[in-house]
Amino acid sequence: MQEKIEAKTLPGFMELSPQDQIKFNEMMETIKRSYERFGFLPLDTPVIEYSEVLLAKAGGETEKQIYRFTKGETDLSLRFDLTVPLAKYVAEYEGALSFPFKRYQIGKVYRGEKAQKGRYREFYQCDIDIIGDENLSIINDAQMPVVIYNTFKELGFDDFTICINNRKILNGLFNNLGLTENAADILRIIDKIDKIGTEAVALELKNLGLKENNIKKIMEFISIKGNKDEKLESLDKLDIVDETFKTGLQELRDTVKYIRAFGLPDNYFDIDLKIARGLDYYTGTVYETFLNEYKKLGSICSGGRYDNLAEYYTDKKLPGVGISIGLTRLFYQLNEINQIKVKKEAISDVVVIPMDEDIEESLQVATKLRSCGINTDVYLEDAKIKKKMKYADKWQIPYAIIIGEEERQTKMYTLKNMKTGEQVRETIEKIIKTIKDE
Amino acid sequence: MQEKIEAKTLPGFMELSPQDQIKFNEMMETIKRSYERFGFLPLDTPVIEYSEVLLAKAGGETEKQIYRFTKGETDLSLRFDLTVPLAKYVAEYEGALSFPFKRYQIGKVYRGEKAQKGRYREFYQCDIDIIGDENLSIINDAQMPVVIYNTFKELGFDDFTICINNRKILNGLFNNLGLTENAADILRIIDKIDKIGTEAVALELKNLGLKENNIKKIMEFISIKGNKDEKLESLDKLDIVDETFKTGLQELRDTVKYIRAFGLPDNYFDIDLKIARGLDYYTGTVYETFLNEYKKLGSICSGGRYDNLAEYYTDKKLPGVGISIGLTRLFYQLNEINQIKVKKEAISDVVVIPMDEDIEESLQVATKLRSCGINTDVYLEDAKIKKKMKYADKWQIPYAIIIGEEERQTKMYTLKNMKTGEQVRETIEKIIKTIKDE
Repeated sequence: MQEKIEAKTLPGFMELSPQDQIKFNEMMETIKRSYERFGFLPLDTPVIEYSEVLLAKAGGETEKQIYRFTKGETDLSLRFDLTVPLAKYVAEYEGALSFPFKRYQIGKVYRGEKAQKGRYREFYQCDIDIIGDENLSIINDAQMPVVIYNTFKELGFDDFTICINNRKILNGLFNNLGLTENAADILRIIDKIDKIGTEAVALELKNLGLKENNIKKIMEFISIKGNKDEKLESLDKLDIVDETFKTGLQELRDTVKYIRAFGLPDNYFDIDLKIARGLDYYTGTVYETFLNEYKKLGSICSGGRYDNLAEYYTDKKLPGVGISIGLTRLFYQLNEINQIKVKKEAISDVVVIPMDEDIEESLQVATKLRSCGINTDVYLEDAKIKKKMKYADKWQIPYAIIIGEEERQTKMYTLKNMKTGEQVRETIEKIIKTIKDE
Repeated sequence: MQEKIEAKTLPGFMELSPQDQIKFNEMMETIKRSYERFGFLPLDTPVIEYSEVLLAKAGGETEKQIYRFTKGETDLSLRFDLTVPLAKYVAEYEGALSFPFKRYQIGKVYRGEKAQKGRYREFYQCDIDIIGDENLSIINDAQMPVVIYNTFKELGFDDFTICINNRKILNGLFNNLGLTENAADILRIIDKIDKIGTEAVALELKNLGLKENNIKKIMEFISIKGNKDEKLESLDKLDIVDETFKTGLQELRDTVKYIRAFGLPDNYFDIDLKIARGLDYYTGTVYETFLNEYKKLGSICSGGRYDNLAEYYTDKKLPGVGISIGLTRLFYQLNEINQIKVKKEAISDVVVIPMDEDIEESLQVATKLRSCGINTDVYLEDAKIKKKMKYADKWQIPYAIIIGEEERQTKMYTLKNMKTGEQVRETIEKIIKTIKDE
């Protein structure tokens, strides 16, 4: 006998049971539906790209994590996000598009991260971006939280906060303090405040070489308290004479104004002045989203505004704003704390179970049910009735139709509600109505 | 200024316009819906697997085409089909599943084929398989054509034929002619008959070393004419004394019988005795599907029965039957001949177009429409009205709602039907009704 090879899956690669996959897919469908509700167009770019194209801008951590290899003579890489492929796409097909270009993409991306619980090397991102031609109105920045709100509501969540900030405010502050050159480093440190705490941030800023009074100002600034309007007022009162700061403050004011115009309830969004997002390419509004009861999960939907999407490929200025949901990690996290809210548990609405070998009528009943739009399984194997019923239980199919000699003769079939155990004898028409009403 | 990198996509990798992507996604959705209608459960396995696992069985052409590389110390490969990952999955999680296990998977697979028009290196396969535990009833073989019929009907096709055959019949014939050892080669040659013709097949069989009378018998056999019942009768009358042949004929008879029991119209399926499918692993029923008016496209949906899915991973016998649609290639082919039947052209049902800078009412109208389940875009940029209307045209959005000073004061908005050009002034309630009725 041939030696067997162990059937195993790579660590860091999610592979779900069918029951979990049903829920995962339902979440993905819900996100897709929500994105389409706002008029975002679908794109599907290749998983593999020329390394030269994909790594035009990458560096540091990202480049180390990349899956890169050659096939024949060609240097290839697997995409590590959906933003770079979007930049490539827009630059490549610019003339065939119409701007503002609103696209969504849901697909797998690859990062060879260190394997650890809840970290995935292959994971789904669900992205939307709006790309402008030379300009893009600030109203688009206000639209993003509205999409986030709608999406997480549809996913079944009620208690979450979308936090917004504007990087120009932070950058303006640093200018004002004469810390422009340290801005990127300072932002990266500030971004960690929830993880490492105030003191550790102050220490890291000190290690960076900042003076005490500058550290103090930064800490005071990111500690501004109050509701949205109070925060905006406090920022104004700081009286910082810096153009970038002023622009950022005005953008933040406008964003809040238009978010309200969209009708987003005020308690679902807030200003959080310490949000910076680590990535260098955000230049204006930034977003993070938190489940209020599970802040430890970190941001479940993030993004921001960037000045120039495709500068590595084209001279055309393409400003944009976008958000992303890392669905694989989110699903894992929510599953761990039993907070998956989607209701769908089964694919089939009903399973037809023939009691004996005379199965023709069962096949016809199944065909009839399907023609009425009812997802229908048929148990076709020769097995004891107990095993057949177990199959229905296993896949959480809500109804079973049992067809034996008596059912065939009377054309009254046994309908069993698998949750309550209740059984009735009904005509096919009544059965169809019962299942459809559910 | 930095040197720009050319934004280009790899040859053999499909990348669609948003307009085509909408149609592609609609086809994929339709296939998914059809598979679920029959109770198939979703799976999503990784694109990357251990090479050892993925190549347990591969060889020849497949192995040459594989995308294989190392990351760190690990030898990795991209999946080249969805069947091997299914085998791995079933062997790995066997104890947690319930049999028969019916799964569908829709995902990208990778083959480094020679680049040529209409051939893709990254392409979607849409697969269903039913896996039995030790045994699997022949009725499952009859279910496959029913799924194919339903799927292509839903995709908008009316004129197609699902051809079935049984490899045991062919293998039995070869046994009977003393050609058992040549069976695989003969099958491969016969499979090419539609491409290269009768004479070329006869010649190839001769080159294989077959005697004239054996070639004659094979050619006669695969030329049996008549309807399904006549063909079954002719096969019976050949009076071939071979157990495999007999078993195959009985399976084919049963398959036809149960296909009819499912209610599949007789003119949508046929027996084609020359179908063998190149792949070695089919052991019983085989399927091919043809658009009758476009036979040149080749089979648009194929598959078959196999004795043992996961023999490289487990001792457990897991017979199965499945079919696959190569959606990327099919989409390309249908698009070329203008035979994409899905109707969906736009994501948005309507675009709200503010006439001036006072956009708050437009945002509110959009929010209202979305809350009624209407996919709604808003044109937010500062532009001439002509440019705004062009945007609606470009993305084939069926309706535009135009909101200016007068509309704001009267709360009667201008609704423009973008196809007819017709404009009316209506309340928001009437507009919602008009759009929903469409």
